[in-house]
Amino acid sequence: MIRWLGALVLVTVALASPSAAAGDEPARYVKTPTGYLMVLRRGDDVIASIDKLAEDEKIGSASLTGIGFLSEVTFGFYDFGKKAFDPKTFHDVEMAGLTGSIAWKDGKPSVHAHATVAGRDFAAVGGHVLAAKVGTGSVEITVVAHDQILERRVDPEIGANVLQLD
Amino acid sequence: MIRWLGALVLVTVALASPSAAAGDEPARYVKTPTGYLMVLRRGDDVIASIDKLAEDEKIGSASLTGIGFLSEVTFGFYDFGKKAFDPKTFHDVEMAGLTGSIAWKDGKPSVHAHATVAGRDFAAVGGHVLAAKVGTGSVEITVVAHDQILERRVDPEIGANVLQLD
Amino acid sequence: MIRWLGALVLVTVALASPSAAAGDEPARYVKTPTGYLMVLRRGDDVIASIDKLAEDEKIGSASLTGIGFLSEVTFGFYDFGKKAFDPKTFHDVEMAGLTGSIAWKDGKPSVHAHATVAGRDFAAVGGHVLAAKVGTGSVEITVVAHDQILERRVDPEIGANVLQLD
Repeated sequence: MIRWLGALVLVTVALASPSAAAGDEPARYVKTPTGYLMVLRRGDDVIASIDKLAEDEKIGSASLTGIGFLSEVTFGFYDFGKKAFDPKTFHDVEMAGLTGSIAWKDGKPSVHAHATVAGRDFAAVGGHVLAAKVGTGSVEITVVAHDQILERRVDPEIGANVLQLD
Repeated sequence: MIRWLGALVLVTVALASPSAAAGDEPARYVKTPTGYLMVLRRGDDVIASIDKLAEDEKIGSASLTGIGFLSEVTFGFYDFGKKAFDPKTFHDVEMAGLTGSIAWKDGKPSVHAHATVAGRDFAAVGGHVLAAKVGTGSVEITVVAHDQILERRVDPEIGANVLQLD
Repeated sequence: MIRWLGALVLVTVALASPSAAAGDEPARYVKTPTGYLMVLRRGDDVIASIDKLAEDEKIGSASLTGIGFLSEVTFGFYDFGKKAFDPKTFHDVEMAGLTGSIAWKDGKPSVHAHATVAGRDFAAVGGHVLAAKVGTGSVEITVVAHDQILERRVDPEIGANVLQLD
């Protein structure tokens, strides 16, 4: 019953407190019944903007999807021998789809995002997103919030960060 | 408290009124706890079908994801010099992923959708969807509804439509 | 009113019963306000894991999105002449995006999933997923649960499985 009330209170708070814009700057998100809807603007850092949302709204964990136009995006393919990402950067591309999650690591938000993008020839490239910046257009991200505070930890068996459920 | 009751009433209405099929034609969607689940059939216009859902169900704004098989899809890459999309059409492709949003513009639904598709060689192409038609198969679209009535407006700085949050 | 109470009870049950891990094996999912969050581990069969979730949690229908790293994935492009999928397998790829749905067929869970993946050159391939196995890393899947029990049936006009809404 307590949890039941907690859920209702969460809904109430979410509906009653839309995010405020700082000065003339357009708001970057609004609350929704299931989480948040973000609209990022030209020059915004996609990952840093999601990090800020997580901190400002104290999001314990969440899933996300999105689209938009990027002035640049850097993908990384993990090399387990080198224990490092081999990066590659693409410029002025439509982001055909972004999918990912928000959790926490060492007290800071930890965004895990993958994406597919395409330039003017429509040929798609994709992978693990290391960095992305909004281009001449916008980026729309839908965040579905969960109620657990979840952490990422390096799984020693594979040497990679894994979202921990317990 | 009023908003709290409003949220409950929304849930109640959503659960109590499944969409009706017109005659023998299969229903194109059902309501769900978070929005709508659409199943489009061969020959359906994907964007027009989402527009119709938005109008019929008076959806203020929403996010969407989907998959399916398309007889044709036209992507457009925006040329800021010409202020027009350079289009390219692909035929008989699996839609590996559709992501987008529903808002309003000039009193009509405004769907913003990006997608990645692939043909029989599995090579992926993608981008901003100008048009898409369901092929020999179906298209499944999940709509997560929000509670704000949101509009798109051309951002004069960049000459492109941007979803407005305030 | 009864449906309204039903929705609240569903929420209550969801919040009150986190999934339990079997022995030392990490849990593969937790319940969330809108459904489930899955984290699959190296070697897990992606489709079989979603099937098991559907059976264990008695999910009538659901939509899903996901990302991760796959040791192998087999896509199939349907050949309507042969009435069979032409398959192709790719190894050690980032799954840039997974989108799909859960329904039922002949009393068993029926997962319909499409994906886009890319290897170390970031070139994307995609399509209908016939099989996928988690590689050196993990796969995160977000499941948004619906309240209808939905079935897939072969549409005799097109010879393909279609999610039935009525």
